[in-house]
Amino acid sequence: MDHLKNIARLLITCPDKPGIVASVTNFLYSHGVNITTLDQYSTDAEGGNFFMRLEFQTPHMDISAPALEKAFAEVIAPKFEMQWHISYGANIKRTAILVSRFDHCLQELLWLYKRGKLDTEIAMVISNHPDLKEDVEAYGIPFHYIPVKKGDKGASEQAMLELMEGKVDLVVLARYMQILSGDFVSHFPQQIINIHHSFLPAFVGADPYRQAYEKGVKLIGATAHYVIEELDAGPIIEQDVARVSHRHSIEKMKDLGQDLERTILANAVKWYLEDRIILAGNKTIVFE
Amino acid sequence: MDHLKNIARLLITCPDKPGIVASVTNFLYSHGVNITTLDQYSTDAEGGNFFMRLEFQTPHMDISAPALEKAFAEVIAPKFEMQWHISYGANIKRTAILVSRFDHCLQELLWLYKRGKLDTEIAMVISNHPDLKEDVEAYGIPFHYIPVKKGDKGASEQAMLELMEGKVDLVVLARYMQILSGDFVSHFPQQIINIHHSFLPAFVGADPYRQAYEKGVKLIGATAHYVIEELDAGPIIEQDVARVSHRHSIEKMKDLGQDLERTILANAVKWYLEDRIILAGNKTIVFE
Amino acid sequence: MDHLKNIARLLITCPDKPGIVASVTNFLYSHGVNITTLDQYSTDAEGGNFFMRLEFQTPHMDISAPALEKAFAEVIAPKFEMQWHISYGANIKRTAILVSRFDHCLQELLWLYKRGKLDTEIAMVISNHPDLKEDVEAYGIPFHYIPVKKGDKGASEQAMLELMEGKVDLVVLARYMQILSGDFVSHFPQQIINIHHSFLPAFVGADPYRQAYEKGVKLIGATAHYVIEELDAGPIIEQDVARVSHRHSIEKMKDLGQDLERTILANAVKWYLEDRIILAGNKTIVFE
Amino acid sequence: MDHLKNIARLLITCPDKPGIVASVTNFLYSHGVNITTLDQYSTDAEGGNFFMRLEFQTPHMDISAPALEKAFAEVIAPKFEMQWHISYGANIKRTAILVSRFDHCLQELLWLYKRGKLDTEIAMVISNHPDLKEDVEAYGIPFHYIPVKKGDKGASEQAMLELMEGKVDLVVLARYMQILSGDFVSHFPQQIINIHHSFLPAFVGADPYRQAYEKGVKLIGATAHYVIEELDAGPIIEQDVARVSHRHSIEKMKDLGQDLERTILANAVKWYLEDRIILAGNKTIVFE
Repeated sequence: MDHLKNIARLLITCPDKPGIVASVTNFLYSHGVNITTLDQYSTDAEGGNFFMRLEFQTPHMDISAPALEKAFAEVIAPKFEMQWHISYGANIKRTAILVSRFDHCLQELLWLYKRGKLDTEIAMVISNHPDLKEDVEAYGIPFHYIPVKKGDKGASEQAMLELMEGKVDLVVLARYMQILSGDFVSHFPQQIINIHHSFLPAFVGADPYRQAYEKGVKLIGATAHYVIEELDAGPIIEQDVARVSHRHSIEKMKDLGQDLERTILANAVKWYLEDRIILAGNKTIVFE
Repeated sequence: MDHLKNIARLLITCPDKPGIVASVTNFLYSHGVNITTLDQYSTDAEGGNFFMRLEFQTPHMDISAPALEKAFAEVIAPKFEMQWHISYGANIKRTAILVSRFDHCLQELLWLYKRGKLDTEIAMVISNHPDLKEDVEAYGIPFHYIPVKKGDKGASEQAMLELMEGKVDLVVLARYMQILSGDFVSHFPQQIINIHHSFLPAFVGADPYRQAYEKGVKLIGATAHYVIEELDAGPIIEQDVARVSHRHSIEKMKDLGQDLERTILANAVKWYLEDRIILAGNKTIVFE
Repeated sequence: MDHLKNIARLLITCPDKPGIVASVTNFLYSHGVNITTLDQYSTDAEGGNFFMRLEFQTPHMDISAPALEKAFAEVIAPKFEMQWHISYGANIKRTAILVSRFDHCLQELLWLYKRGKLDTEIAMVISNHPDLKEDVEAYGIPFHYIPVKKGDKGASEQAMLELMEGKVDLVVLARYMQILSGDFVSHFPQQIINIHHSFLPAFVGADPYRQAYEKGVKLIGATAHYVIEELDAGPIIEQDVARVSHRHSIEKMKDLGQDLERTILANAVKWYLEDRIILAGNKTIVFE
Repeated sequence: MDHLKNIARLLITCPDKPGIVASVTNFLYSHGVNITTLDQYSTDAEGGNFFMRLEFQTPHMDISAPALEKAFAEVIAPKFEMQWHISYGANIKRTAILVSRFDHCLQELLWLYKRGKLDTEIAMVISNHPDLKEDVEAYGIPFHYIPVKKGDKGASEQAMLELMEGKVDLVVLARYMQILSGDFVSHFPQQIINIHHSFLPAFVGADPYRQAYEKGVKLIGATAHYVIEELDAGPIIEQDVARVSHRHSIEKMKDLGQDLERTILANAVKWYLEDRIILAGNKTIVFE
């Protein structure tokens, strides 16, 4: 991925006060990097929180990456009580995709991957069903079939952990129909992205599309979010909706829902891989 | 409203079985009416429910309206166990608008009304605050200030009933911030339309825009619905959403929400006045 | 395709006058068919044109399909000067896809096809480049590589005609980058669907995305249309747009454009296969 | 407008090279201003153009506004060959609205104005028809009726210039149906905003809605743009579309078009008043 070789991105969160932008850009400039994109956002100039994303070019940087980070950690970060992180394009992020039987989200990701539109290496696909093995391997990507035995979810999670821990940077639940334990989730903080349907109003319980149909909703939607222990309550990354009418059967609603899901999940994954998402408590700041 | 003078609309709900369309169109044709629009929908050809809306021209009708209805009631309706209703454009529907202090929905309706885009006579505006009196009277529409005394909502509802009962066909809650009693609602079955904000996910409790902001939703929405006794649970007529990002303050979200509310409520009111909405249990069939 | 076995669809165009719906539905009813969907539209009740689409179930039809058509042709059609056509679900439509190198539209159609969402048999894919051969054959669909020699387009069109004429009902140009001759087009009247980019304002000449970028448009779009001899001027079937800003590079605009193209073309193809499109002069009536 | 009292905005255009953000933010920080929003965009890090918008708080600024500007002009601007402008919230922009008979755009702007959503003083409304005088004066805004005599447009333009020149910062053409001369336009460079309908494809000549209807377009749109001498060719500020189908009469299309026009024009005007638009040749960079 040549277009990433010389790129780095700095994400910052800190209390807002005067001088942050000046300090950070000055520091980077003085080390020979060229800032190409700067996005910042403050919840409030007085007493609010400040968020910033900088993308910069490193070919003329006058020190090594570790030295830059050391200097930043000593000179800039403490002055503003910053939480910060620099990622380097040269360190390609590795992604694992978890999937069950529905293949629409998986296929969209694989297709984008093949066309070079995802800045990642898809390291593996894991499924609790063997069905999609051939489709995945046609892309030259390892496929692992890890069934979930009723009453012994722990074993399958353990097997997945062994495959993934330390080996992937992002876990995408591309319609993986198993609920992950809080323990499993804790191994990948802010590293698991899920997609699920959303309705106005929300429907709880089984078969939400049937409920939506019976309620006569005029919109159906989907939400991509980080996974936290509490089910479907993680920070929202992206949402969208499509119009429906009484003419949409449940089947047609589901088709539309799948179209939403694959687009929305793909966007959320792209933004993650391009370091565009900053977590702020239970919400996300997305610098699209 | 000259364009309505010769128009009538027939709405039908019945169990689906073969021959409904043929029978109804035949009947109308044999009485000299010219069908200009026919919309129908069946939940299932076998054992489903059937819904139909016909708009027709009456100038060459060979019998009077009462005679037509009598014939229909005797010849067609029983054969198919129909619930049905004919409305005549010449009988202009009368509308009452209930409003509190926010004027965005009211202003949109008044503006459309003035331009001849609402097939109704706005018979009155009622408010629990005196603020909008002047704005309403500038349109030549009677304004009634009926305050709601704490602990005695009954008195104000009684006053409103006296003004409206038998005198209006539609009650529009254009951001009327009082909860109407089940008793009041029962005087206007499927005749009260309300607008309220909607979010993915839904937020209960006070200040939902603040909750939406704090949750970092990427969409805000609004829903127009019929009012039933259970709060905000009535059949949905229309919904829409707008995109927001972290850059939207709560204030900006509310502005956007108001833009949604006025458009969505106006559409729902138009559809009601044009007899485009059929209630089917707790959902609506809208023949847009 | 079992869900199509018992379905037939009747499309009608004629001058509007009273009694059309009654006559047609009566006729069908008297022959034991059950109308499940009826859409009609009139440009004007007086002196306008009338369009109707009926979908009906044939299991209890009391005569054969040819007999039904003969009766309709003799009894109903002449009375109203109808142009009409009945298609039967049991006669699966056959589709040829023409493609060059861009695969996004092709992949979307193949993927929908595999999932059973297109009511057709994809009989062949033809390309002027060999690149996509493997992708197509993985679906078990014949792939024909027919290069276009400079200055001798006639030979390739002749080769395509031999493969397709009488053997396909629909030709989809899924980003086929050759201009078809008027002669070729005349073999498939209202049977060729193309997709192309659309902008506000329109840009003529080379590299329209660059022009759109330089003009700073805020929307990019795409249009699916029937192919007629005059380039890109055929009747519009479907259109959509996506928002862009100055932040979208030409590359990103093209990605978004491809997403639009695949969705819009897929919808147009679905509607064609479901007999939802009626041509009215140079415009389409689409009964979605 | 208290919320504007302490705000200033700096807009910058220059060739991109390293150090711009650092220099500018450093300069401002050293003078005690607090940057609350910074948006920047570069067409290309190497040899491209750089655009930046900063919003900052001035209460703790250590020098006067003129002194700040003088210092910036001497120390920062020349180093980067900047075109730049600082506007101060305390200097409320004055707006003139030009209108003919259609009132939808005017009403929207007046309504937003009354609610405090436009950061401007509407100094006057000018019309070539007397019809809207009463509506405008109800808001306490001066209304000037300046008819346009056939063959003597010059006189009316001269009368308008006398009213507006040096007295307004922005001229909004809210469906003003007269073509302004190049000479008139040259008095208000990048200060006149117009709204007009847009279609895919574009239609030239009279009655574009009829043409769109006859062509069967599936989308109608509108564009807000700066006015330059060449008609409707000025830089685009904002665009949007709405879906239509064959069911939309020309009348209904126009209603929808008016809804688009009022929203899009209002957005463009808001962005202008908040200094969010930078002109880059014939395109706009809008920092929404």
